[in-house]
Amino acid sequence: MNYKLILQYDGSRYDGWQRQGNTARTIQGKLEGVLSRLAGEPVEVHGAGRTDAGVHALGQVASVKLPGAMPAAEVMACANRYLPEDIAVVDACEADERFHARLAARGKVYRYRLRLGPVPDVFRRKYQFRLEEPLDLEAMERAAALLTGTHDYRSFCADRRYKKSTVRTVHAIEFHRDGPDLAVTFRGTGFLYHMVRILMGTLLEVGRGERDAESMTAVLAAKDRSAAGATAPAQGLTLVEVLY
Amino acid sequence: MNYKLILQYDGSRYDGWQRQGNTARTIQGKLEGVLSRLAGEPVEVHGAGRTDAGVHALGQVASVKLPGAMPAAEVMACANRYLPEDIAVVDACEADERFHARLAARGKVYRYRLRLGPVPDVFRRKYQFRLEEPLDLEAMERAAALLTGTHDYRSFCADRRYKKSTVRTVHAIEFHRDGPDLAVTFRGTGFLYHMVRILMGTLLEVGRGERDAESMTAVLAAKDRSAAGATAPAQGLTLVEVLY
Repeated sequence: MNYKLILQYDGSRYDGWQRQGNTARTIQGKLEGVLSRLAGEPVEVHGAGRTDAGVHALGQVASVKLPGAMPAAEVMACANRYLPEDIAVVDACEADERFHARLAARGKVYRYRLRLGPVPDVFRRKYQFRLEEPLDLEAMERAAALLTGTHDYRSFCADRRYKKSTVRTVHAIEFHRDGPDLAVTFRGTGFLYHMVRILMGTLLEVGRGERDAESMTAVLAAKDRSAAGATAPAQGLTLVEVLY
Repeated sequence: MNYKLILQYDGSRYDGWQRQGNTARTIQGKLEGVLSRLAGEPVEVHGAGRTDAGVHALGQVASVKLPGAMPAAEVMACANRYLPEDIAVVDACEADERFHARLAARGKVYRYRLRLGPVPDVFRRKYQFRLEEPLDLEAMERAAALLTGTHDYRSFCADRRYKKSTVRTVHAIEFHRDGPDLAVTFRGTGFLYHMVRILMGTLLEVGRGERDAESMTAVLAAKDRSAAGATAPAQGLTLVEVLY
């Protein structure tokens, strides 16, 4: 039976989603460990987004094939019993045999949470990154408007040897300010390696006045990683939702 | 100058509020360390509530006398610069010379956060305690009604040798259910040692059907710790507010 799982995790303690050799400190590795024990044989879990080390998930989606016909609710209950307390399966259903969480994904939503100013939020400190200096939000919104649409995002891709198309559609980059908290939400068809973090890092340079908002068109046109800004820290980034 | 500070902290890593010998792992100890450095001499910080190990604070209040006449905003900024990231001063003002955070407090609000059912909230796991079994909330509310008012709460005090009056007023015990999340808020003039935790532990025994809601009157009348229920875990408890 093929299953679709919705996952939440606090990525702070992990080396990211993707299993790497025999490192046990990945989300995929933890999940495969628990589900392989349940299956009685090694199983492979496919995640929709390969989140970086330290990146969190509110709605990561994974697919996994297990022998037999265990009800999805039972798979979920069993996984939650054995998973560490910073990873949870929050929903599970039976899926079509051909469903593959990554290949079937039609869009993703990522969100950066920033804490502005001198007073940290002690309870959400692991889910936001802090910035003491003021930001010109209006300039950031102008830059964000230029960065949305369908473009070749090669300038925003950390993998210089990436061979496939680097054209993606970013539907929206939305800003939501609530006192000292700023959330920046990225909605798109898909994101290249480190693309959200480089978009955020570049927007921050605009916000600090280090770049003109209007220069974004030239940054895209350069198709060169060195034209864009620094990669923003993984801390504060969450994979919010995967669309199918 | 005497200052009133509003503090937030994630108590997970600490041995509670109160400085103990030369243990550095207390909130009071951390705060006194930072403020003594600022003052250039040892200072003593008085907290309104001596929160237990693992208990959090959203609105703990502390008073401290510092030499000179530094603006309160500067004391706050300096403290936040040197405090660890799980402790923050979120507000500060100059106070009357006679203001003492603990002695002047007229009331306190504590909140327990529980996560019911099999699915943990990975992002709030340190601020709630989990319970898999169902609870009879209606019975808990009936018991809570009997536990509010002005009573001798000796049965709910962990300090058997406590010499002073154990009469307190609990204004309200409120339940707020939101899907799998349950918040139980305790409002009162003051609480004895472990009183909130023993009230919560006793209410949980009612919720599980191990005690009758109606037996609360007899528990109060016994004036004996052994008549009440177990002490609930510190995890999930937060000092929300101190009233003056």
